[in-house]
Amino acid sequence: MSTTSTPASKHNISPYAQALACDHYYHLGLDTDMDLQALFGDVKYFVMMGSPTRAETFAEVMANAFVEQGLPKPTVMRLGKTERYSMFKCGSVISVSHGMGGPSLHILMNEVAKLCNHVGIIDTVKWIRLGTSGGCGVAPGTVVCTTQAINDEIKPCWRTVQLGKVFEIPTDVLDMQFVDDIIASAPEDIPVVKGKTMAADDFFEGQGRTDGALTPWYTEEDKINFIHKMHDAGVRNIEMESVALMGFCQRAKIPAACVCVTLVNSNFIATTEAKTTAH
Amino acid sequence: MSTTSTPASKHNISPYAQALACDHYYHLGLDTDMDLQALFGDVKYFVMMGSPTRAETFAEVMANAFVEQGLPKPTVMRLGKTERYSMFKCGSVISVSHGMGGPSLHILMNEVAKLCNHVGIIDTVKWIRLGTSGGCGVAPGTVVCTTQAINDEIKPCWRTVQLGKVFEIPTDVLDMQFVDDIIASAPEDIPVVKGKTMAADDFFEGQGRTDGALTPWYTEEDKINFIHKMHDAGVRNIEMESVALMGFCQRAKIPAACVCVTLVNSNFIATTEAKTTAH
Repeated sequence: MSTTSTPASKHNISPYAQALACDHYYHLGLDTDMDLQALFGDVKYFVMMGSPTRAETFAEVMANAFVEQGLPKPTVMRLGKTERYSMFKCGSVISVSHGMGGPSLHILMNEVAKLCNHVGIIDTVKWIRLGTSGGCGVAPGTVVCTTQAINDEIKPCWRTVQLGKVFEIPTDVLDMQFVDDIIASAPEDIPVVKGKTMAADDFFEGQGRTDGALTPWYTEEDKINFIHKMHDAGVRNIEMESVALMGFCQRAKIPAACVCVTLVNSNFIATTEAKTTAH
Repeated sequence: MSTTSTPASKHNISPYAQALACDHYYHLGLDTDMDLQALFGDVKYFVMMGSPTRAETFAEVMANAFVEQGLPKPTVMRLGKTERYSMFKCGSVISVSHGMGGPSLHILMNEVAKLCNHVGIIDTVKWIRLGTSGGCGVAPGTVVCTTQAINDEIKPCWRTVQLGKVFEIPTDVLDMQFVDDIIASAPEDIPVVKGKTMAADDFFEGQGRTDGALTPWYTEEDKINFIHKMHDAGVRNIEMESVALMGFCQRAKIPAACVCVTLVNSNFIATTEAKTTAH
């Protein structure tokens, strides 16, 4: 391990992995024997989203956006393996799938953070999770930009267990200016709100749904009461990854945004008025 | 909702989803307006595993096994959509990917359980998770069949939060005879052990690894002490899904086995002697 006087990185990057002769980013299908600098040295944004299909579509849409601005269409490159995640590069933007749930996203973030550190972009890179979510008092079609991620106990933390010890990592957004810049860039006709995002570890009972496989213990009334309680706490949408995202990025000091479009309103709450880029 | 005198199912299947005019198994790309009976009515086993590649390979290997026994090769059918999970059918066996981590598997199990109930096989179907895992005192190559799943706090339960309330669902194997039958069917040259399986919600620090992105708080010695403690508690392997699997199957009363091959020994513990099918 290096013992030079290089100042410690603010990013808390582990010396263990850096000391390996070759570090395998196993789930990405990349390793440090490859010329990763040539592929990733110019990357400004890692945009992460659930499905491989969506990651590929996003990269194609990015490429077409260049054409719409009269610029040459950049090549969309597929990088690494596709067994666990699917990664695409379009100019200085990487689009990559993260699967469903915090644990799947967390593996990706570990390997991407090591990659960003290895190619020397960790001080400048920004991450964005693009997703879909249930609305909590916001209308379908509204984009919710997360100000703080909240876990399923309505606590502002990511709960992680390491060697049997429970840690609660804060999940505040590290750089609200980055989030505000994203909101400011939204077209006028897209409704955008800022708010807290609740991450559940489950799609069905974890989000108060009644259409899961098993008979829930709660009634519709219990569910509505809970959703009101969340709304009162400032929650505007519900998904499954934001606490892992914000918890990791708090620890790594990497600016990240969580930007989710609302598919349904999770019930019976008058919708918060959506504001466009003016706010 | 039906109010007939049909006895309540032991499987705790929710009446809410069954009362829907059409129930969409959204993440599978199937719905109850399709002729699911024709596709799934003869299924005896759902075999679940992490990656789409592995699910397809398993279905092909199954088909070839028929040929090796002098039978006609069954068609391998791809079913549903592939955006979230990839599902294949080969005779009476379904092979389906579940992604990484408990939350991703849990969504799949909810939709598969509803499907099994809808087509009338829920009293006879059995589920198997096939995976890879880190060994805890067992040599690489050893297959570990789970007797009980243990969470990352070394507790025999699946921790789930529903409407803000924390539940700890037991994770004992429901039908050890099914597990023993699987062990008995293993070829003589494959080492098999029974033991507890720990599920972590993370691949790196959650499993005591030091090659994650961020500097861990623990030393190698802390890690080894923890792995010894797990071994003393009867844990023989570590993966990421067994508590969700056994927790759900306890609730649904569906017999399930968790069968994982050991990729590495998670360090410095004399390996437990592997026994073949004779035990």
